[in-house]
Amino acid sequence: MNYTNELISIGPRALSYPNPVMLIATFDENKIPDIMAASWYGICCSEPPCVNVSVRKARKTYDNLILNNCFTVLVPSEEMVMEADFTGIYSGHKVDKCKELDLKYTNSEIIDAPVIEGFPILLECKVINKIELGSHTQFIGRILDIKVNKSLIENKKIPTIKDVKPFVYDSGTRAYYSIGKFLGDAYKIGLKSNINT
Amino acid sequence: MNYTNELISIGPRALSYPNPVMLIATFDENKIPDIMAASWYGICCSEPPCVNVSVRKARKTYDNLILNNCFTVLVPSEEMVMEADFTGIYSGHKVDKCKELDLKYTNSEIIDAPVIEGFPILLECKVINKIELGSHTQFIGRILDIKVNKSLIENKKIPTIKDVKPFVYDSGTRAYYSIGKFLGDAYKIGLKSNINT
Repeated sequence: MNYTNELISIGPRALSYPNPVMLIATFDENKIPDIMAASWYGICCSEPPCVNVSVRKARKTYDNLILNNCFTVLVPSEEMVMEADFTGIYSGHKVDKCKELDLKYTNSEIIDAPVIEGFPILLECKVINKIELGSHTQFIGRILDIKVNKSLIENKKIPTIKDVKPFVYDSGTRAYYSIGKFLGDAYKIGLKSNINT
Repeated sequence: MNYTNELISIGPRALSYPNPVMLIATFDENKIPDIMAASWYGICCSEPPCVNVSVRKARKTYDNLILNNCFTVLVPSEEMVMEADFTGIYSGHKVDKCKELDLKYTNSEIIDAPVIEGFPILLECKVINKIELGSHTQFIGRILDIKVNKSLIENKKIPTIKDVKPFVYDSGTRAYYSIGKFLGDAYKIGLKSNINT
Protein backbone atom coordinates (compact mmCIF):
# COMPACT_ATOMS: atom_id res chain seq x y z
CA MET A 1 0.00 0.00 0.00
CA ASN A 2 1.20 3.47 -0.82
CA TYR A 3 0.16 5.78 1.94
CA THR A 4 -0.40 9.41 1.23
CA ASN A 5 1.60 11.57 3.57
CA GLU A 6 -1.47 13.44 4.64
CA LEU A 7 -2.22 12.71 8.29
CA ILE A 8 -5.54 13.16 10.05
CA SER A 9 -5.56 13.88 13.79
CA ILE A 10 -8.03 11.73 15.72
CA GLY A 11 -7.05 12.93 19.19
CA PRO A 12 -5.64 10.96 22.12
CA ARG A 13 -7.26 7.58 22.77
CA ALA A 14 -6.24 4.07 23.86
CA LEU A 15 -5.61 2.89 20.32
CA SER A 16 -2.78 0.68 19.12
CA TYR A 17 -2.54 -2.27 16.75
CA PRO A 18 -2.51 -5.09 17.74
CA ASN A 19 -3.18 -5.83 21.41
CA PRO A 20 -2.84 -9.26 23.01
CA VAL A 21 -5.66 -10.99 24.89
CA MET A 22 -4.64 -12.73 28.11
CA LEU A 23 -6.54 -14.05 31.08
CA ILE A 24 -5.27 -13.00 34.50
CA ALA A 25 -6.12 -15.54 37.21
CA THR A 26 -6.09 -14.78 40.93
CA PHE A 27 -7.48 -16.05 44.22
CA ASP A 28 -9.64 -14.07 46.62
CA GLU A 29 -9.51 -14.31 50.42
CA ASN A 30 -11.65 -17.49 50.30
CA LYS A 31 -9.46 -19.09 47.63
CA ILE A 32 -12.20 -18.65 45.02
CA PRO A 33 -10.48 -18.19 41.65
CA ASP A 34 -11.24 -15.25 39.40
CA ILE A 35 -10.16 -14.73 35.79
CA MET A 36 -10.24 -11.50 33.82
CA ALA A 37 -9.40 -10.79 30.17
CA ALA A 38 -6.66 -8.19 29.82
CA SER A 39 -5.38 -6.48 26.67
CA TRP A 40 -3.41 -3.73 28.40
CA TYR A 41 -0.66 -6.30 28.87
CA GLY A 42 2.78 -7.22 27.56
CA ILE A 43 6.30 -8.37 28.25
CA CYS A 44 8.27 -5.49 29.77
CA CYS A 45 11.67 -6.98 30.66
CA SER A 46 13.87 -9.83 29.41
CA GLU A 47 16.15 -10.28 32.44
CA PRO A 48 14.52 -10.87 34.85
CA PRO A 49 11.59 -11.80 32.60
CA CYS A 50 8.59 -9.65 33.54
CA VAL A 51 5.12 -8.87 32.25
CA ASN A 52 2.97 -5.84 32.88
CA VAL A 53 -0.80 -5.83 33.18
CA SER A 54 -3.10 -2.89 33.84
CA VAL A 55 -6.26 -3.35 35.89
CA ARG A 56 -9.07 -1.01 36.95
CA LYS A 57 -9.64 -0.66 40.69
CA ALA A 58 -13.28 -1.75 40.32
CA ARG A 59 -12.15 -5.20 39.24
CA LYS A 60 -12.05 -8.16 41.62
CA THR A 61 -8.69 -8.94 40.04
CA TYR A 62 -7.40 -5.66 41.49
CA ASP A 63 -8.43 -6.63 45.04
CA ASN A 64 -6.96 -10.11 44.56
CA LEU A 65 -3.65 -8.74 43.27
CA ILE A 66 -3.38 -6.41 46.27
CA LEU A 67 -4.21 -9.33 48.58
CA ASN A 68 -1.88 -11.98 47.21
CA ASN A 69 0.73 -10.12 45.15
CA CYS A 70 0.76 -12.85 42.52
CA PHE A 71 -1.17 -14.06 39.49
CA THR A 72 -1.10 -16.53 36.65
CA VAL A 73 -1.38 -15.45 33.02
CA LEU A 74 -3.36 -17.88 30.88
CA VAL A 75 -2.86 -17.61 27.12
CA PRO A 76 -6.21 -18.43 25.53
CA SER A 77 -6.32 -20.12 22.15
CA GLU A 78 -8.74 -18.86 19.50
CA GLU A 79 -11.13 -21.69 20.34
CA MET A 80 -11.65 -19.94 23.69
CA VAL A 81 -12.49 -16.51 22.33
CA MET A 82 -16.05 -16.59 23.70
CA GLU A 83 -14.88 -17.64 27.15
CA ALA A 84 -12.18 -14.97 27.11
CA ASP A 85 -14.71 -12.31 26.14
CA PHE A 86 -17.02 -13.52 28.92
CA THR A 87 -14.30 -12.97 31.52
CA GLY A 88 -13.83 -9.41 30.24
CA ILE A 89 -17.53 -8.53 30.31
CA TYR A 90 -18.51 -9.69 33.78
CA SER A 91 -17.09 -8.70 37.14
CA GLY A 92 -15.69 -11.25 39.56
CA HIS A 93 -17.46 -9.27 42.28
CA LYS A 94 -20.76 -10.56 40.92
CA VAL A 95 -20.04 -13.72 38.95
CA ASP A 96 -18.05 -16.87 39.79
CA LYS A 97 -16.55 -17.07 36.31
CA CYS A 98 -14.78 -20.42 36.65
CA LYS A 99 -18.04 -21.95 37.82
CA GLU A 100 -20.03 -20.37 34.98
CA LEU A 101 -17.49 -21.55 32.40
CA ASP A 102 -17.07 -24.93 34.08
CA LEU A 103 -13.32 -24.49 34.36
CA LYS A 104 -11.37 -26.73 36.71
CA TYR A 105 -8.39 -25.46 38.66
CA THR A 106 -5.67 -26.42 41.07
CA ASN A 107 -3.31 -24.34 43.19
CA SER A 108 0.01 -23.32 41.69
CA GLU A 109 2.85 -25.07 43.48
CA ILE A 110 4.99 -21.94 43.58
CA ILE A 111 2.61 -18.99 44.03
CA ASP A 112 -0.73 -18.38 45.67
CA ALA A 113 -2.71 -18.27 42.42
CA PRO A 114 -4.89 -20.69 40.47
CA VAL A 115 -3.74 -22.94 37.65
CA ILE A 116 -6.81 -23.12 35.41
CA GLU A 117 -7.06 -26.24 33.27
CA GLY A 118 -7.51 -26.24 29.51
CA PHE A 119 -5.10 -23.52 28.40
CA PRO A 120 -2.06 -24.09 26.18
CA ILE A 121 0.37 -22.03 28.26
CA LEU A 122 0.46 -20.27 31.59
CA LEU A 123 2.89 -17.91 33.27
CA GLU A 124 3.28 -17.86 37.07
CA CYS A 125 4.06 -14.32 38.21
CA LYS A 126 4.91 -12.45 41.40
CA VAL A 127 4.04 -8.74 41.62
CA ILE A 128 7.22 -6.67 41.98
CA ASN A 129 5.91 -3.19 41.20
CA LYS A 130 2.66 -1.25 41.01
CA ILE A 131 2.24 2.07 39.20
CA GLU A 132 -0.84 4.30 39.42
CA LEU A 133 -1.66 5.69 35.99
CA GLY A 134 -5.24 6.99 36.17
CA SER A 135 -8.12 4.72 35.16
CA HIS A 136 -5.75 1.76 35.48
CA THR A 137 -3.08 0.53 37.87
CA GLN A 138 -0.17 -1.19 36.20
CA PHE A 139 1.13 -4.30 37.97
CA ILE A 140 4.53 -5.63 36.98
CA GLY A 141 4.91 -9.35 37.52
CA ARG A 142 8.17 -11.22 37.51
CA ILE A 143 7.74 -14.52 35.62
CA LEU A 144 8.82 -17.25 38.04
CA ASP A 145 7.97 -20.16 35.75
CA ILE A 146 6.12 -20.98 32.54
CA LYS A 147 4.09 -24.15 32.14
CA VAL A 148 3.28 -25.53 28.70
CA ASN A 149 0.60 -28.08 28.03
CA LYS A 150 2.29 -31.40 27.28
CA SER A 151 0.37 -31.87 24.02
CA LEU A 152 2.17 -28.81 22.61
CA ILE A 153 5.66 -29.77 23.57
CA GLU A 154 6.14 -33.34 22.40
CA ASN A 155 8.82 -32.72 19.80
CA LYS A 156 10.16 -29.31 20.55
CA LYS A 157 10.93 -27.13 23.51
CA ILE A 158 9.02 -23.99 22.67
CA PRO A 159 5.70 -24.14 20.78
CA THR A 160 5.25 -21.78 17.84
CA ILE A 161 2.50 -19.18 17.81
CA LYS A 162 0.63 -21.35 15.27
CA ASP A 163 0.54 -24.19 17.80
CA VAL A 164 -0.69 -21.95 20.62
CA LYS A 165 -3.16 -20.05 18.40
CA PRO A 166 -3.54 -16.96 20.55
CA PHE A 167 -5.60 -14.06 19.22
CA VAL A 168 -5.46 -10.28 19.23
CA TYR A 169 -7.80 -7.43 20.12
CA ASP A 170 -8.47 -4.52 17.78
CA SER A 171 -9.06 -1.67 20.22
CA GLY A 172 -10.23 0.57 17.38
CA THR A 173 -13.24 -1.50 16.37
CA ARG A 174 -13.44 -3.67 19.51
CA ALA A 175 -13.08 -7.02 17.77
CA TYR A 176 -10.94 -10.15 17.98
CA TYR A 177 -8.75 -11.54 15.19
CA SER A 178 -6.71 -14.71 14.80
CA ILE A 179 -3.01 -14.95 13.93
CA GLY A 180 -2.33 -15.22 10.21
CA LYS A 181 0.57 -16.32 8.07
CA PHE A 182 4.32 -16.49 8.73
CA LEU A 183 6.04 -13.35 7.45
CA GLY A 184 9.69 -14.04 8.22
CA ASP A 185 12.32 -14.74 10.84
CA ALA A 186 13.17 -11.94 13.24
CA TYR A 187 16.78 -10.73 13.35
CA LYS A 188 17.23 -12.23 9.88
CA ILE A 189 14.96 -10.73 7.24
CA GLY A 190 16.15 -7.21 8.00
CA LEU A 191 19.87 -7.97 7.76
CA LYS A 192 21.74 -5.86 5.18
CA SER A 193 24.97 -7.22 3.79
CA ASN A 194 26.41 -3.75 3.19
CA ILE A 195 26.30 -2.77 6.86
CA ASN A 196 29.13 -3.69 9.19
CA THR A 197 28.60 -3.08 12.87
CA MET B 1 -8.01 -28.72 20.53
CA ASN B 2 -8.30 -30.80 23.67
CA TYR B 3 -5.35 -30.08 25.88
CA THR B 4 -4.14 -32.68 28.27
CA ASN B 5 -3.92 -31.31 31.76
CA GLU B 6 -0.31 -32.35 32.05
CA LEU B 7 1.91 -29.30 32.25
CA ILE B 8 5.62 -29.14 31.50
CA SER B 9 7.75 -26.52 33.24
CA ILE B 10 10.05 -24.63 30.86
CA GLY B 11 11.39 -22.15 33.42
CA PRO B 12 11.14 -18.37 33.49
CA ARG B 13 11.71 -16.60 30.20
CA ALA B 14 10.39 -13.63 28.23
CA LEU B 15 7.71 -15.66 26.48
CA SER B 16 4.15 -14.62 25.77
CA TYR B 17 1.83 -14.94 22.77
CA PRO B 18 1.44 -12.68 20.85
CA ASN B 19 3.62 -9.57 21.07
CA PRO B 20 3.10 -6.42 19.00
CA VAL B 21 5.79 -4.90 16.78
CA MET B 22 6.06 -1.12 16.91
CA LEU B 23 8.68 1.36 15.84
CA ILE B 24 9.73 3.95 18.40
CA ALA B 25 10.98 7.16 16.79
CA THR B 26 13.09 9.77 18.60
CA PHE B 27 15.48 12.65 17.91
CA ASP B 28 19.05 12.88 19.16
CA GLU B 29 20.80 16.11 20.22
CA ASN B 30 21.47 16.97 16.58
CA LYS B 31 17.86 16.32 15.55
CA ILE B 32 18.88 13.17 13.68
CA PRO B 33 15.94 10.75 13.87
CA ASP B 34 16.32 7.20 15.13
CA ILE B 35 13.79 4.38 14.95
CA MET B 36 13.83 1.11 16.88
CA ALA B 37 11.54 -1.92 16.70
CA ALA B 38 9.95 -2.69 20.07
CA SER B 39 7.86 -5.68 21.09
CA TRP B 40 8.01 -5.09 24.83
CA TYR B 41 5.24 -2.57 24.33
CA GLY B 42 1.53 -2.09 24.94
CA ILE B 43 -1.32 0.14 25.99
CA CYS B 44 -1.25 0.49 29.79
CA CYS B 45 -3.98 3.01 30.61
CA SER B 46 -7.27 4.15 29.05
CA GLU B 47 -7.69 7.51 30.80
CA PRO B 48 -5.35 9.23 30.25
CA PRO B 49 -4.41 7.00 27.30
CA CYS B 50 -0.86 5.73 27.81
CA VAL B 51 1.51 3.23 26.29
CA ASN B 52 4.51 1.52 27.83
CA VAL B 53 7.68 0.59 26.00
CA SER B 54 10.78 -1.09 27.40
CA VAL B 55 14.22 -0.18 26.07
CA ARG B 56 17.75 -1.40 26.85
CA LYS B 57 20.21 1.26 28.03
CA ALA B 58 22.61 0.38 25.19
CA ARG B 59 20.07 1.65 22.65
CA LYS B 60 20.30 5.08 21.11
CA THR B 61 16.56 5.26 21.68
CA TYR B 62 17.26 5.14 25.43
CA ASP B 63 19.58 8.18 25.24
CA ASN B 64 17.10 10.03 23.05
CA LEU B 65 14.19 9.30 25.42
CA ILE B 66 16.21 10.60 28.37
CA LEU B 67 17.16 13.69 26.36
CA ASN B 68 13.76 14.67 24.97
CA ASN B 69 11.18 12.87 27.13
CA CYS B 70 8.98 12.17 24.14
CA PHE B 71 8.62 9.77 21.22
CA THR B 72 6.38 8.77 18.39
CA VAL B 73 5.08 5.23 17.95
CA LEU B 74 4.84 4.13 14.32
CA VAL B 75 2.61 1.16 13.59
CA PRO B 76 4.26 -0.74 10.74
CA SER B 77 2.11 -2.62 8.25
CA GLU B 78 3.10 -6.13 7.21
CA GLU B 79 4.58 -4.74 3.96
CA MET B 80 7.23 -3.12 6.19
CA VAL B 81 8.29 -6.24 8.08
CA MET B 82 11.82 -6.18 6.62
CA GLU B 83 12.30 -2.52 7.46
CA ALA B 84 10.93 -3.10 10.97
CA ASP B 85 13.31 -6.01 11.52
CA PHE B 86 16.19 -3.87 10.25
CA THR B 87 15.49 -1.24 12.91
CA GLY B 88 15.57 -3.94 15.59
CA ILE B 89 18.87 -5.47 14.43
CA TYR B 90 21.05 -2.39 14.10
CA SER B 91 21.92 0.23 16.68
CA GLY B 92 21.22 3.91 16.12
CA HIS B 93 24.64 4.54 17.66
CA LYS B 94 26.21 3.09 14.52
CA VAL B 95 23.65 3.34 11.72
CA ASP B 96 21.50 6.24 10.50
CA LYS B 97 18.46 4.03 9.98
CA CYS B 98 16.17 6.56 8.31
CA LYS B 99 18.91 7.29 5.80
CA GLU B 100 19.58 3.57 5.17
CA LEU B 101 15.86 2.90 4.69
CA ASP B 102 15.33 6.12 2.71
CA LEU B 103 12.58 7.25 5.08
CA LYS B 104 11.52 10.88 5.03
CA TYR B 105 10.48 12.73 8.16
CA THR B 106 9.21 15.98 9.54
CA ASN B 107 9.04 17.35 13.08
CA SER B 108 5.93 16.63 15.09
CA GLU B 109 4.02 19.85 15.70
CA ILE B 110 3.30 18.98 19.33
CA ILE B 111 6.37 17.09 20.62
CA ASP B 112 10.08 17.06 19.94
CA ALA B 113 10.05 13.80 18.00
CA PRO B 114 10.06 12.80 14.33
CA VAL B 115 7.02 12.03 12.22
CA ILE B 116 8.30 9.40 9.81
CA GLU B 117 6.47 9.21 6.50
CA GLY B 118 4.93 6.05 5.08
CA PHE B 119 3.25 4.51 8.12
CA PRO B 120 -0.49 3.96 8.51
CA ILE B 121 -0.77 5.32 12.06
CA LEU B 122 1.40 7.11 14.57
CA LEU B 123 1.03 7.99 18.23
CA GLU B 124 2.64 11.13 19.67
CA CYS B 125 3.69 10.47 23.27
CA LYS B 126 5.21 12.34 26.20
CA VAL B 127 7.17 10.34 28.79
CA ILE B 128 5.44 10.55 32.19
CA ASN B 129 7.17 7.73 34.06
CA LYS B 130 10.31 5.59 33.91
CA ILE B 131 10.76 2.32 35.79
CA GLU B 132 14.04 0.40 36.06
CA LEU B 133 13.36 -3.33 35.69
CA GLY B 134 16.75 -4.94 34.95
CA SER B 135 17.84 -5.47 31.36
CA HIS B 136 15.18 -2.97 30.30
CA THR B 137 13.88 0.40 31.43
CA GLN B 138 10.15 0.85 31.00
CA PHE B 139 9.03 4.26 29.73
CA ILE B 140 5.38 5.18 30.08
CA GLY B 141 4.19 7.62 27.46
CA ARG B 142 0.99 9.59 27.60
CA ILE B 143 -0.63 9.63 24.14
CA LEU B 144 -1.13 13.32 23.27
CA ASP B 145 -2.50 12.70 19.79
CA ILE B 146 -2.88 9.99 17.18
CA LYS B 147 -2.45 10.66 13.48
CA VAL B 148 -3.96 8.37 10.87
CA ASN B 149 -2.92 8.31 7.25
CA LYS B 150 -5.67 9.94 5.22
CA SER B 151 -5.92 6.96 2.83
CA LEU B 152 -7.14 4.82 5.75
CA ILE B 153 -9.77 7.16 7.06
CA GLU B 154 -11.82 8.22 4.06
CA ASN B 155 -15.10 6.64 5.05
CA LYS B 156 -14.79 5.90 8.72
CA LYS B 157 -13.25 7.42 11.81
CA ILE B 158 -11.15 4.51 13.09
CA PRO B 159 -9.48 2.04 10.70
CA THR B 160 -9.90 -1.65 11.41
CA ILE B 161 -6.90 -3.85 12.11
CA LYS B 162 -7.35 -5.36 8.61
CA ASP B 163 -6.88 -1.90 7.08
CA VAL B 164 -3.79 -1.18 9.15
CA LYS B 165 -2.31 -4.68 8.71
CA PRO B 166 0.05 -4.66 11.70
CA PHE B 167 1.91 -7.85 12.55
CA VAL B 168 2.98 -9.75 15.64
CA TYR B 169 6.19 -11.19 17.02
CA ASP B 170 6.44 -14.77 18.28
CA SER B 171 9.04 -14.46 21.04
CA GLY B 172 9.24 -18.26 21.34
CA THR B 173 10.51 -18.92 17.83
CA ARG B 174 11.58 -15.34 16.98
CA ALA B 175 9.37 -14.92 13.94
CA TYR B 176 6.80 -12.49 12.58
CA TYR B 177 3.19 -13.34 11.69
CA SER B 178 0.37 -11.39 10.07
CA ILE B 179 -3.13 -10.83 11.47
CA GLY B 180 -5.64 -13.49 10.44
CA LYS B 181 -9.40 -13.73 10.35
CA PHE B 182 -12.14 -11.95 12.31
CA LEU B 183 -13.20 -14.04 15.29
CA GLY B 184 -15.96 -11.95 16.84
CA ASP B 185 -16.96 -8.68 18.44
CA ALA B 186 -15.56 -7.92 21.86
CA TYR B 187 -18.04 -7.33 24.70
CA LYS B 188 -20.63 -9.21 22.63
CA ILE B 189 -19.68 -12.79 21.84
CA GLY B 190 -19.15 -13.61 25.52
CA LEU B 191 -22.51 -12.26 26.72
CA LYS B 192 -24.67 -14.83 28.53
CA SER B 193 -28.39 -14.25 28.65
CA ASN B 194 -28.78 -16.06 31.97
CA ILE B 195 -26.52 -13.66 33.87
CA ASN B 196 -27.89 -10.44 35.33
CA THR B 197 -25.39 -7.98 36.70
